[in-house]
Amino acid sequence: MTADITKGLELRSLIKSSGELEISLQQVTIPAPGADEIVVRVEAAPINPSDLGLLLGAADPSTAKVSGAGASTVVTATVAQANMKAMAGRLDESMPVGNEGAGTVVKAGSSPEAQALLGKMVAVIGGAMYAQYRLIKAKEVLPLPDGTTAAEGASCFVNPLTSLGMTETMKREGHKALVHTAAASNLGQMLNKICQKDGIDLVNIVRSEAQEKLLRDIGAKYVVNSTAPTFVDDLVVALEATGATIAFDATGGGKLQGQILHAMEVAAVKAMKVYSRYGSDTFKQLYIYGRLEPRPVEFMPPGFAWSMGGWLLFPFLQKIGREDAAKLRARVVAELKTTFASHYTKTISLQGVLNLDNLRAYAKRATGEKYLINPNMPG
Amino acid sequence: MTADITKGLELRSLIKSSGELEISLQQVTIPAPGADEIVVRVEAAPINPSDLGLLLGAADPSTAKVSGAGASTVVTATVAQANMKAMAGRLDESMPVGNEGAGTVVKAGSSPEAQALLGKMVAVIGGAMYAQYRLIKAKEVLPLPDGTTAAEGASCFVNPLTSLGMTETMKREGHKALVHTAAASNLGQMLNKICQKDGIDLVNIVRSEAQEKLLRDIGAKYVVNSTAPTFVDDLVVALEATGATIAFDATGGGKLQGQILHAMEVAAVKAMKVYSRYGSDTFKQLYIYGRLEPRPVEFMPPGFAWSMGGWLLFPFLQKIGREDAAKLRARVVAELKTTFASHYTKTISLQGVLNLDNLRAYAKRATGEKYLINPNMPG
Repeated sequence: MTADITKGLELRSLIKSSGELEISLQQVTIPAPGADEIVVRVEAAPINPSDLGLLLGAADPSTAKVSGAGASTVVTATVAQANMKAMAGRLDESMPVGNEGAGTVVKAGSSPEAQALLGKMVAVIGGAMYAQYRLIKAKEVLPLPDGTTAAEGASCFVNPLTSLGMTETMKREGHKALVHTAAASNLGQMLNKICQKDGIDLVNIVRSEAQEKLLRDIGAKYVVNSTAPTFVDDLVVALEATGATIAFDATGGGKLQGQILHAMEVAAVKAMKVYSRYGSDTFKQLYIYGRLEPRPVEFMPPGFAWSMGGWLLFPFLQKIGREDAAKLRARVVAELKTTFASHYTKTISLQGVLNLDNLRAYAKRATGEKYLINPNMPG
Repeated sequence: MTADITKGLELRSLIKSSGELEISLQQVTIPAPGADEIVVRVEAAPINPSDLGLLLGAADPSTAKVSGAGASTVVTATVAQANMKAMAGRLDESMPVGNEGAGTVVKAGSSPEAQALLGKMVAVIGGAMYAQYRLIKAKEVLPLPDGTTAAEGASCFVNPLTSLGMTETMKREGHKALVHTAAASNLGQMLNKICQKDGIDLVNIVRSEAQEKLLRDIGAKYVVNSTAPTFVDDLVVALEATGATIAFDATGGGKLQGQILHAMEVAAVKAMKVYSRYGSDTFKQLYIYGRLEPRPVEFMPPGFAWSMGGWLLFPFLQKIGREDAAKLRARVVAELKTTFASHYTKTISLQGVLNLDNLRAYAKRATGEKYLINPNMPG
């Protein structure tokens, strides 16, 4: 069964110096696994917001055109000249895409560790997952319990570990409750499940009444709508009720970051007994982990006891160390069908990624909508 | 000699709910010192930017009027309605002013520790220093070597410890060189002396050619002018040369903060060998320690490995602990006439603080200009 797998399709994204994005499928050679390596037949890989950055780059999806057919289909789109500077590091380089996924181990090297995985369902993070086969070291995969499907295991890493990373960061940095923006997202819903299970107070910031209802329907206690005229006052009330002094922000632009820190400072100053012209000494932290909003961040420094910074999953996992990261992964596996269950709008093939209707849909990054790729589903 | 001191003048700042600032002198009672306390006759106290925030609040100095005469002189000025919200915490409360100063111990409690200080010149930080006498615990003052004048010892804390705090923070947080804005200030010049003595690379950001020359004349190697058309490019060159990845910013508004982080990221990306859409993993830190610029901060997040936050001297000293803070203070005393020498434009009496010509001059916070108050100089 295993000897015949020597080639497979892999999705590639290329941005040319001329300002053109090209998405295509390449037939690539699957090398024979080394002693400690395995080959995974990828059967499910989600399209996360973090994948779209690499897949589409700064190209404008509305300019997308398709040519060719079958495995030779090619999508092209235009990158506006103003956005080319940000693409400098990847120009004219054909890049594999897909952070995570799951599938069956179909080939294994000679080591006992690799051999033990043969035929098993495993979850993988490591890039190049939008491909029919993925060669990887045996120790880098996460074996899934018997009876787990590829679709169930496809999103084991990015969303579960990011949302767990938020509550972990909250605890490790001495905060007792947290704030989350774009809170109706797949990740935001998962964070609500974690917080409800762990008894952590979470202030959800959403952008519409529909999203407010969605979160209340899954049991969220604190939901504030940033488009409401009473937003900042509502936020202060929720911050006073929860004592939240750390926020995770997916938008990364505009005035929301400053509004959150300002509201935290207002809540802290209300509790002060003695005036200080420096404001409160309650430490307020805001982490930006996404860039849904392309405008610059604009804010008034909220006193002096504050920090705003970038937050990314991989540096966080490195910081907490191998052992603690393994504990988080073990929790994800244990609660894969409950807390960490993901829901997908649609499952598509590798060729389906190049379908313009699909592309326009997943490129929207619409809250609550999520696509799953099955690279071994006939296109 | 000591029994007769029971009253003294103290400067007060009051902002009324009506929107009026009132600066006056109050005759206050000097309590007899407890066993572990002393009374310092204040002979020199600087007007630092950090004092002006409390002294003038959000009042507009151009509206200042004077009435009365001698010790009954009163200055009034108007606080614009839009700025009253920020004053909410101090309304209708008569507040003493003056963070630091130096003077002679004229009364001492019965404890040996207090008695040992009688007749000595000491430096004090703790507020209410714009006063003829200051009651304080003996253990809270810094005894100065014989032969030190009050003027020499007046600025022992704020500028010396803030500039030492910057190089200490740099080292403790793992950076090898630093950036400073408003770099031609008294504090900025002191930081240059520390860095030259300690062999630390410092990138000075100034706002004029005159300030550029001033710093080069005192031996600064890296000076960039933020008003030059080539500013960001010049900054990148200086950052590449020094490897600076931490900045201390006195302005706290506008686009300068983002320009510094962006230039650090450009320098870091130049050194990268493999593309990442998240940018470099070189951690970039910017601390805001002042508010010379009242506009909001506006910036594009520079990748994900960055942080921007408030920095204040007192939380820093608390964080490093009593023992390490004592080491920094000992260094200040040892180098008081060299590295940490302060220069003053003018010495004025307590009544001189209420003189409108003086007020308009010190309210300007002009770089390189600094006033010293001698509360026991005849007004």
